Formats: sequence, C-alpha cells, structure tokens
Amino acid sequence: MEQTLPYSRNRPCRAAAVARWDGEADVIVVGFGAAGACAAIEAARAGARTLLVEAASAHGGTSALSGGEIYVGGSGGTLQQRTAGFSDDTEDLYRYLMLAGGPDADADKVRLYADHSLAHFEWLQAQGLVYKNSFIAERIVEPFTDDCLIWSGSEQAWPFCEQAKPCPRGHTPQWEGLGGGKLLMDTLAARVAELPVEVRYDTRAQALINDDDGRVCGMVLRSAGVDRCARAQRGVVLCAGGFVMNRDMIRQHAPQMARSNMPIGTVDDGSGIQLGQSVGGHAIHMSEGFVTLPWYPPEQLIKGIFVNEQGQRFVNEDGYHGRTAQHILQQSGTRFWLLLDQDIYAEPAFSEFAKIGIGAAGETWDEVERDLELPAGSLTGTVAVYNRHAAEGRDPLFRKQPKWLKPLTQPPFVALDCRIDHAVYFSFTLGGLDTRPSGEVLDASRRPIPGLYAAGRTACGLPRWGAGYSSGMSLADATFFGRQAGLAAASHAKG
Amino acid sequence: MEQTLPYSRNRPCRAAAVARWDGEADVIVVGFGAAGACAAIEAARAGARTLLVEAASAHGGTSALSGGEIYVGGSGGTLQQRTAGFSDDTEDLYRYLMLAGGPDADADKVRLYADHSLAHFEWLQAQGLVYKNSFIAERIVEPFTDDCLIWSGSEQAWPFCEQAKPCPRGHTPQWEGLGGGKLLMDTLAARVAELPVEVRYDTRAQALINDDDGRVCGMVLRSAGVDRCARAQRGVVLCAGGFVMNRDMIRQHAPQMARSNMPIGTVDDGSGIQLGQSVGGHAIHMSEGFVTLPWYPPEQLIKGIFVNEQGQRFVNEDGYHGRTAQHILQQSGTRFWLLLDQDIYAEPAFSEFAKIGIGAAGETWDEVERDLELPAGSLTGTVAVYNRHAAEGRDPLFRKQPKWLKPLTQPPFVALDCRIDHAVYFSFTLGGLDTRPSGEVLDASRRPIPGLYAAGRTACGLPRWGAGYSSGMSLADATFFGRQAGLAAASHAKG
Repeated sequence: MEQTLPYSRNRPCRAAAVARWDGEADVIVVGFGAAGACAAIEAARAGARTLLVEAASAHGGTSALSGGEIYVGGSGGTLQQRTAGFSDDTEDLYRYLMLAGGPDADADKVRLYADHSLAHFEWLQAQGLVYKNSFIAERIVEPFTDDCLIWSGSEQAWPFCEQAKPCPRGHTPQWEGLGGGKLLMDTLAARVAELPVEVRYDTRAQALINDDDGRVCGMVLRSAGVDRCARAQRGVVLCAGGFVMNRDMIRQHAPQMARSNMPIGTVDDGSGIQLGQSVGGHAIHMSEGFVTLPWYPPEQLIKGIFVNEQGQRFVNEDGYHGRTAQHILQQSGTRFWLLLDQDIYAEPAFSEFAKIGIGAAGETWDEVERDLELPAGSLTGTVAVYNRHAAEGRDPLFRKQPKWLKPLTQPPFVALDCRIDHAVYFSFTLGGLDTRPSGEVLDASRRPIPGLYAAGRTACGLPRWGAGYSSGMSLADATFFGRQAGLAAASHAKG
Repeated sequence: MEQTLPYSRNRPCRAAAVARWDGEADVIVVGFGAAGACAAIEAARAGARTLLVEAASAHGGTSALSGGEIYVGGSGGTLQQRTAGFSDDTEDLYRYLMLAGGPDADADKVRLYADHSLAHFEWLQAQGLVYKNSFIAERIVEPFTDDCLIWSGSEQAWPFCEQAKPCPRGHTPQWEGLGGGKLLMDTLAARVAELPVEVRYDTRAQALINDDDGRVCGMVLRSAGVDRCARAQRGVVLCAGGFVMNRDMIRQHAPQMARSNMPIGTVDDGSGIQLGQSVGGHAIHMSEGFVTLPWYPPEQLIKGIFVNEQGQRFVNEDGYHGRTAQHILQQSGTRFWLLLDQDIYAEPAFSEFAKIGIGAAGETWDEVERDLELPAGSLTGTVAVYNRHAAEGRDPLFRKQPKWLKPLTQPPFVALDCRIDHAVYFSFTLGGLDTRPSGEVLDASRRPIPGLYAAGRTACGLPRWGAGYSSGMSLADATFFGRQAGLAAASHAKG
C-alpha cells in the first residue's frame, strides 16, 4: 500500500497512508540557499535534529548568484555607516522599509527587522563573514573592489527622502570584485558543516505529509529516483526560492515580468510556494517582482533623463536602478532611451554586459528625435520642459533631486538604447507565501498551518513591491527571517 | 465526534470525520448569481438532483447590479448585428477575445466561446430573455432605453481594430433604462424555479468536504447558525463571485485596485476562491480587475484628451471607458483631467453620478495649465504636440483613430476633473480559480481537483486583463461557463 496515493507538490500525502517512515528529524529545511542555511543553523543551534535537503548537487541556490549584499542599519548605524559619517536611526530604517514595501508593507516584519537589523549584521559576522570598514560614496550597483558600504536603494530620491533620513545601507562582504554571494553562501555552508545538520543534496521535496488534523508532519523526498518518507517531528521550513524560472507561473501571476529577458534563478521553479499552497498556505503579491537594468555607474548618467516611446519621461531618474527598470516594465511600449548631453555622456560600466548601446546622436534634440523616429515635438517637448525647470534647479514633474539636475543643452546629444526587448533586464519574483515574522505559513484567514514555515523568496517578505526594491533587501530578508523560521520550528513542541 | 474538526473556508472537512450526512444532492451549486443560476439550470436539465445555496436572502448576486449586457457574436452575427449591417466572423470574435484576455488569454475558453457564442445567445432567449432588434450607433455605456446592441468595448480602437474587424457585440435585454441585470437574474431565477432545483437562501458554504483521495464530495453548509453536512454525489460548483469586497484580499493581491473607491459587489468576499484553494485549487491573475469611470457619453467627449498630473497623455482615448480608467489606475499620481475645447465640450451624461466636475477653464491652454497648477510647459506642450498631429489626422503617440481626432484649438478650454480620489471609479476583480472550459478546477500543475468546478468571478475566465475588458464580457463568461460547469458536474459519475 505504500506510496500508492497520488501525492505531488500540489497534493499533500496523508500521514495515515504512510506505511513506513524512512527517516526522521525534528526540523526539515528545504533548500540550501541563504534562507535555508540560516534556518538550519538556528534550528541546529536550538538543539533540533535538523535535515537540510537541496535539489541541486551543491549549496548556494540563487543567493550564490548575487552580490552578497545585505540591507542593514538602524540602532545608530553599523561600524561602516558610523565611520562614513552616517548615524542611522531605527525609525528611519523602519520608515524606509515601510515605504519600500509598498501599499501592503508587512509592518510586523519591518518592525522586527528594523529593531534587530544591527544585531543581525553582527550575527552574520559571527558566522564568519567579514566586512571591510569602507564606504563608496558614488552611486554604483556593486563594488568592483572589496569595499563594503554603498548607496544601494532609493534613499536619497523622492518620495523616500521625504519619509526617512537618507542613509546608505547596502553592506557587501569583503571580496574582490562582483559576486560576493558565493562567498556569503560558502561561509554559511561552512557554518552548517560545523553543526549537527544532516545535509542531503540531489534530493527533491516531492510533497508535504500532513496528518488528519492538518498538521504538517513530514515530507516525501526523492533522491536517485526513489521516494522516501521523512518525518518532521517539529516542523518543515520551505526555503526553496521563488518562481522566476517557472514560465507558466510567471504568465499566470506576473505576466509583466515575462518582459524581462534575464531571470535570475537556479531552481526557483515555484515548488516551495506550491508545496505551501498544497496544505492551504496563501500566496500573496504574486504579481510583484524585482527587475533591473544596470544603467549606471558612472553616476553622472543619473543626470540624464529616461523617455519612453512617446518621448515622455516617466520616473525620477535618481532612484535605485531597479526602480527605473520597474517603471520601464510598467510602460506599454518596448523602446526606451536614456538621454544625455556632452557634459554628462559616458559609457555605462555595464554597457556590454547589459547590451546598452547608442540609439542615436545628433547636434540638436530635433535630430535625435528624427533619428529615433519619434513623433515631431514629442522628445523635443519633453527635453524643453525638463531643461526649463532644471535650469531653475527644479523637477516639478517627477521630483528628481537638485543634485542631479542640469539642463541637457551641450551638444552633441546622445540617446542610449535601453529597449526592453534587447537590453538585459534581470528579474526575480517577490510574491510568495504569507508568513508571520516567525516564518509560520498562514492560510487566507491568516491562521497558521501547524508545522509549516517558510522564508526567503518562497515567502512574501520585506521586499514585496518592485518599485520599492533596494539591493540587499532580499538577502537581508532571507537570512534574518530564515533564522526566525529555523528557531520557531525548532522550538515548536511535537504536535 | 461530529463537526469537531476545525474546518473553514480554508480547511476542508475530511469525509471520514463526518458522522452524519444531513442531506444529499448530485450537484451542489454555491451562489445564485448569473453563473450559479446557469450551472443549476444545466445540471437539473441533465437530470442531476441539484441543490443551489445562496448566502443572501434572495437570488441575484452581483449580476443583478449590472446592466445585464452580454458580449456575444461570431458565426455571422446575431439578428441585431446583422440588422444593423454588421456581419461578425467567428475568427474576428476569437481574435478580439484573445487580445482582450491579455498576455495569458485562455485560448481553450476563447475558442469554445467564440464557436458557441451565437448559440449561447439563443439559449439565453430560450430561458425567457428578450432582446429588441435595435442598435445604438453612438458610443455609450448602457442604453437609457430598451434598446439592445451597442459598441461596448475597444473594437474600433488600436490595437484591437488591427487584429479583428470591428463589430459591436454588447447585447442588453429589453428593459427600459439602466439596470437590466435585475431582469436578467429574475428571468434566470424564474427558469430555475421551473426546474427540480432545491434552492436554499441564507445559507453559507462553510467548507468543502473531501475524501481521502482528495475528491470533493460535499460541503458544510451553515444556516440559522447550524452547520450541516451535505453530500454532493457528483460535484460542487463554486459560483460565489469575486473578492472585491474583501479589502484584505484586495490589499494582498491587487493593491492598485484599492485606488478605486466604488467596488461593485454583493457578497464577493473571496470565499468561493478560498474554498477552491483549500483543496489545492490554483488562483491566477489575482492582481487583475475591471475598473471604470463612465466619462462618456456623449461620444464627442472622446475627441478630448486625458492627461495625468505630469500633463502627459497616457492612452488612446477612443477605447472602452474602462480601458481609459485602467490606464489611469496604473499611473502613479491621483490627478487626471479630460481636456476639451469649445467645439466638443459637453457635460458628461454621468457627471453627477460619477462626480466629474470642471477642474479649470480658460481662454488659453496656458491659463488652464496655471489654474491646474501644472508645471509650466507640461500641459501646453502635450496639447501642442497633439494638435499638431491631429491637424494632420494622425495620433502617432497613442494611435487614436482619425474619426476622433481634432485639434483642441477653439477657446474657451476646459479640463474636466477626473481625480481618482474624488470621481467615482467602479471596480470588480478578474482573478480567480484556474479552470478548464468545462469548469473543472485545476491545481498549480493544471490537474483537475476531482469533484470541484467553478464559474463566474470565482474562476479566472475570458476576462482576465483589466486593460482588455469590454462591457458584457463578465456576464457572457459567467452564463456560458456556468452552463458548462453545471453540465460537467452533472455528467460526472459518482467518484
């Protein structure tokens, strides 16, 4: 009779139908990215027998593809922030994160994170991560060096700057060049290896197992083509990433994101979210995602203006590069340009990588408009209005800050080609299972599903609104709330 | 032991835990709006013992609040279309509906509906509905008279007009004045009353009941404060509306829709969707909704242009009024105006109802711009570009069709105030359970949940993209696919 019922990631297996348990742990963690690693560390440290399963053959997940940057601050500021001359009040961090979370920011999660962000940064260092005491003042995407602190969001841009005192909060581990996420994951994995955590690679979570009163009490795990039932005495923690690689789910939930041509993911097939949904977990904000085109540095490009295929501006260009890209994604056309004049022209640092080329150049904006085949008066009208106000140090249309305003009057003029169907727009999903700050997965009435926890992009966390995303938010959320979920699962008495 | 398990709309009740079945039917239909009525009619006609439960004290649901209009055509055209001089090719209807369904249009549903739309219109007439053989050529929202055929969508507007030969397809039942939805529902309810359908009002669907292999086999129904278990031998059909009245769900799935201040709903608390999700049903396109501001008739207003608070146009104004409103909803600001000149000025027919007043007027557009406190050059620049091209009979920015183009040059000029936080924007949700054309509810892997069906706004149907909505699509979908679901449930052999 064993294993004859049609379980799947969408259908839980009934505990009563399990003829034999092939293994047992207190806590089973699914996924060995940043969230899963932190959940396993905390569960094991809390004394739980912890099993960490990973579909791939190695640790890392999508976290290892990232820059390894963490969005932290508050409580007066990190060493790096204070050394660079910034104090960071917890309430400023709180207000920034609430605004960044959009119209349904999770106040409970934001509160907990704002209060404990600094302590969390210390915890990461206690796991072995090293952060240089340095600050890069220029607006960049990620350090090419081993430096730490950067402006990684929209802190200095409207409307954020009006709600919270601006402070740089992106902290990148000490690592020469891009790609600190690999270092982050290697460091967390080394810590996992020191703890009594059983790690199984090449193992897929096939289904949840729940008992007759709805408590999640185990999982069906597949490795080498064989399904085995593992009991989880205290809980299951889903840290299996988002769904950006599942094109069906993208089409069904976030069709706008299909316009991005470079999903950032490893597995990220939505299986974590689907497992949670199979037992009543409620997925929210499934239409939201992070998207970006790394169009700066150098930061002088921020003095340019973006226009759509109507020749209109649509956003203040001094926000986070992902905020610009989010607004591009929301426009209906496919053609977008960054307009620059001789004074500020530079080749974007990532121009080759991101396929940003020159769309047109000319001695007058009229010439550029014609070259781009834009309707007469459209682009030139936009530039005229922008220049008129920029000369007065104002941007009444989109409230770009004075620091970045200058009339685009010095020929030759250039339009950098940022077509959404050509340039490289990176993306990952932000929607996921609704959870408490403890990681408990909630149903649509916000009641917890006993025995089930989630973190990282399998959950809907601090970042849940594309236009508010800042670099480091997803890893901050994954590591911090991964820890909470591991702790909560470990401390849950057997059901 | 009876009823002690914690079932809810989010937790199914296990059949094994039901100590006593209090009643039995072949098919249980939840909700007595248009979808539920049609499901019950077809189930009963197919010989199924049918129980129709409704939370309210009377039939009607949100369908009864509507204009009663149905989007039909194809197969050469209805009598009304042909009499008015239109032939309507099935493939034109198909292509229009595919475009209207947006980036994830359901080709299977569109195919079935396009092929059988004309026959469905005849079926509605066989149920007792009467449609006058008349056509109103002017672009309106709903007839104030008892007339039938109107242009109820974006058929003549770009990009629709390039994909499918334009044809009017909104058919309103013969009924003097607005509100034909009540007539529609009274007629369908009279038909239900003639058939062996047991109707129970004031009865809420508390939970689904499923057996150990996941088949839905009944419901917990609450009336007069008592929960009773009703067995459904063949299936349960969820036709309980959308979720526009559930403000938590709106915030979690479609926060943009919270900007609409007039949700159109009766119950529409998302309970139908949640019931489906409780057993693994997959809800899709939950961020999408219909929204409108009835800003025309008279149709001459379509010759005006809409601007946002940057003084920019953002849509071709000759589409369906709901398409304009959808684009308004997607803009970031709150202030919007319809710009008119003396030649085309008129008071909108619904100005009082929709709270559309005059925002500013002036002898020059400069004066209007200043009055509206818009940045110098913004609105005037937009009007100049529009006028320049309109004089040539073109709208290169948004492709409004030549019929509606005229330069706005005749003073005095007027800006009608359509602020989204003041004028009345109506809305309902379009996201819901993923279903087959048969109404079978699907899980995230698109496998059917045995015994479970859905239709109407509990399902994600033909209309699933706000910017493509046309009047009559939701009722067309609810009645046609309600019928399919009733039939499919009735013909399903006992599990």
